[in-house]
Amino acid sequence: MEARIRQDFPILDSQIKGEPLIYLDNAATSQKPVRVIQAITDYYQRRNANVHRGVHTLAEQATRQYEAARDKVAAFIGAQREEVIFTRGTTEGLNLIAAWAGRVLQAGDEVLITVMEHHANLIPWQEVCRQTGAKLVYAYLKDGRLDLVDFRAKLNSRTKFVSLAHVSNVLGCINPVEELASWAHQVGAYVVVDAAQSVGHLPVQVASLDCDFLVFSGHKMYGPTGVGVLYGKKEILTKFPPLVFGGEMIASVSEQEASWADLPYKFEAGTPPIAEAIGLGAAIDYLADLDMARVEAHERELGAYLLAALKQIEGLTLYGPTEFQQRVGVFSFNLAGLHPHDVATALDYQGIAVRAGHHCAQPLLTYLGQGSALRVSLALYNTKEDCQALIKALEETKEFFHGLG
Amino acid sequence: MEARIRQDFPILDSQIKGEPLIYLDNAATSQKPVRVIQAITDYYQRRNANVHRGVHTLAEQATRQYEAARDKVAAFIGAQREEVIFTRGTTEGLNLIAAWAGRVLQAGDEVLITVMEHHANLIPWQEVCRQTGAKLVYAYLKDGRLDLVDFRAKLNSRTKFVSLAHVSNVLGCINPVEELASWAHQVGAYVVVDAAQSVGHLPVQVASLDCDFLVFSGHKMYGPTGVGVLYGKKEILTKFPPLVFGGEMIASVSEQEASWADLPYKFEAGTPPIAEAIGLGAAIDYLADLDMARVEAHERELGAYLLAALKQIEGLTLYGPTEFQQRVGVFSFNLAGLHPHDVATALDYQGIAVRAGHHCAQPLLTYLGQGSALRVSLALYNTKEDCQALIKALEETKEFFHGLG
Repeated sequence: MEARIRQDFPILDSQIKGEPLIYLDNAATSQKPVRVIQAITDYYQRRNANVHRGVHTLAEQATRQYEAARDKVAAFIGAQREEVIFTRGTTEGLNLIAAWAGRVLQAGDEVLITVMEHHANLIPWQEVCRQTGAKLVYAYLKDGRLDLVDFRAKLNSRTKFVSLAHVSNVLGCINPVEELASWAHQVGAYVVVDAAQSVGHLPVQVASLDCDFLVFSGHKMYGPTGVGVLYGKKEILTKFPPLVFGGEMIASVSEQEASWADLPYKFEAGTPPIAEAIGLGAAIDYLADLDMARVEAHERELGAYLLAALKQIEGLTLYGPTEFQQRVGVFSFNLAGLHPHDVATALDYQGIAVRAGHHCAQPLLTYLGQGSALRVSLALYNTKEDCQALIKALEETKEFFHGLG
Repeated sequence: MEARIRQDFPILDSQIKGEPLIYLDNAATSQKPVRVIQAITDYYQRRNANVHRGVHTLAEQATRQYEAARDKVAAFIGAQREEVIFTRGTTEGLNLIAAWAGRVLQAGDEVLITVMEHHANLIPWQEVCRQTGAKLVYAYLKDGRLDLVDFRAKLNSRTKFVSLAHVSNVLGCINPVEELASWAHQVGAYVVVDAAQSVGHLPVQVASLDCDFLVFSGHKMYGPTGVGVLYGKKEILTKFPPLVFGGEMIASVSEQEASWADLPYKFEAGTPPIAEAIGLGAAIDYLADLDMARVEAHERELGAYLLAALKQIEGLTLYGPTEFQQRVGVFSFNLAGLHPHDVATALDYQGIAVRAGHHCAQPLLTYLGQGSALRVSLALYNTKEDCQALIKALEETKEFFHGLG
């Protein structure tokens, strides 16, 4: 798979400090294939116009392309097109859902999240709970993944929303959303899935997950920055009022009142991220042509290989599942006696891009007893050679710093 | 000015239905110079990484470029860099300000807007007034522009927010913000300026306008879709709490509480529109190199020419100032007996892109006694030949339809 694919990503030919780039920071953002970059360029060079409102040819072409991108997203996640709302990213999607929740929640209600949530799926709920008097409840971990017993025990008739990551951006574990959603629905809770770390790495179908909402970003799945998706079940979106107001989302407006357009437009106020949605559509075309099952298989094989190699490194503490089951290629760890920022800086001198920090998951890091960690994350263009170079560089970095100590 | 400039915009070489494109829908969105398209391409091909959190080289380069774009915006509008917040566009900026206002306003307070506001600067205020019991007050028109006497008469000690367009997207008039802001500040109101239609067409300096907030979009000023700017005076932004929550905007997070980062980051939750901000920076470089005073002079000359020609067309009713003073090149009008959509469609067959509709300003259209209007809007790359072609096509369209009737 890899050789041909690497040619699709121009940035992978870069040199960093004289070394070939080895990009292992994919959980932060993925690189973009030529096809995505070209879709954006082509849009601006040949079709750029504002959508929906125009009768002229360019406006019609731009509208058709923008709406075609919505169809592509819908097909990719198995949704209906009215259920696909373009946002600026996962964070906006989660904030909108939490703002809706703020109108539904009452004092004494509960929101259940997990301790592995990204700040984007955590702080909006803190705020909503503070405003409504609802209680923010956490499910914790067992063996580096979600403790299903703890999760289930924390569901009850007061639980109105359950919001959790499909895949943890730190632990790399895949949460069994289908099972968790069925438990949550038994107590009548809405189920919100943060799919930022899953949707570019494994096949995601909203019908089989049976979640009520699912959100993700374009830029982590080979698409552009500035665009994301909020999926919501049609019957739920229909009854929620819009929360952002402006052009494009109205049926009619008088001086003191307005009425709303139909789905999905009532949630898309203002000029949408047109070029970005079209770029995301191109990313989905690219993934669909590769076939998500193959993408997943490649990353699974590579991830299993890397996990086995990381476990051989003496003094390395891995956070997250230590077996490659229900897992993606996201690995967070520390090396005994070394600060993760120092290690990341040393790796950068060898052209290897990894991340060090709290990964926007401070409660998780605190729970793990850590201030920060290194994180290595794979994508479809990574190779066994990338993993080997990383392992070699980690061993050398250890030796170097221990030689200083 | 024009010949060289037109080469910078690849789309202007397009053919529409066999005719050369004449793009006169710039108030909806402007076209993009090569420099902007290339800045985006270059970012994705050579520097793409997530910003702020990474220690690796790509992340540092991306961060530097993103923050350089903020510096460019700040210099362009005469703000400090902490006062420049990247949003997804004008609509998001206005919604955020209105949401803030929702925490400040009390029953009986007043919000003063004008009847020429775009829905984005109108529906958020309707909502906030509905929620708080504040009153939404309108200032009306005189001679196709804001009636300053009416505006001043509607300011009083209950007026807490004044929000208005710098330039009307329908009438084309420039509102005298400096004067209006000084009156509004005398009664203690905050002043919000929707600069979506001004910032790409005339020099805009926040210090001389003395507004408290100013918002605009990238895509109407030769930059990409998916990005905009919210400017706020530092002392005001400092006291307002963030309204969107997630990664990047925090100082620290525990399970039940979070504290916020400093300005401007506390208002930028999640991965920002990185490529888009960089593209906007390139648009600003482009405009700064041309010199905004020259851009304004060119459009003023062309606008005066076009206005004079439009006034010669029999049966044409122009909405907005009929003299080219305190005005930009945005012209809305109707032709007696013809539906604006029919005219726009006929013009499209001659390659001429104009807009027909309510222009997201239904209360204004209602006030004018119209359901819809044609709108022609100029940009820096338009020429006298474009205007002549439009006038000729309008005359021919009139003849054609009258021949049918």
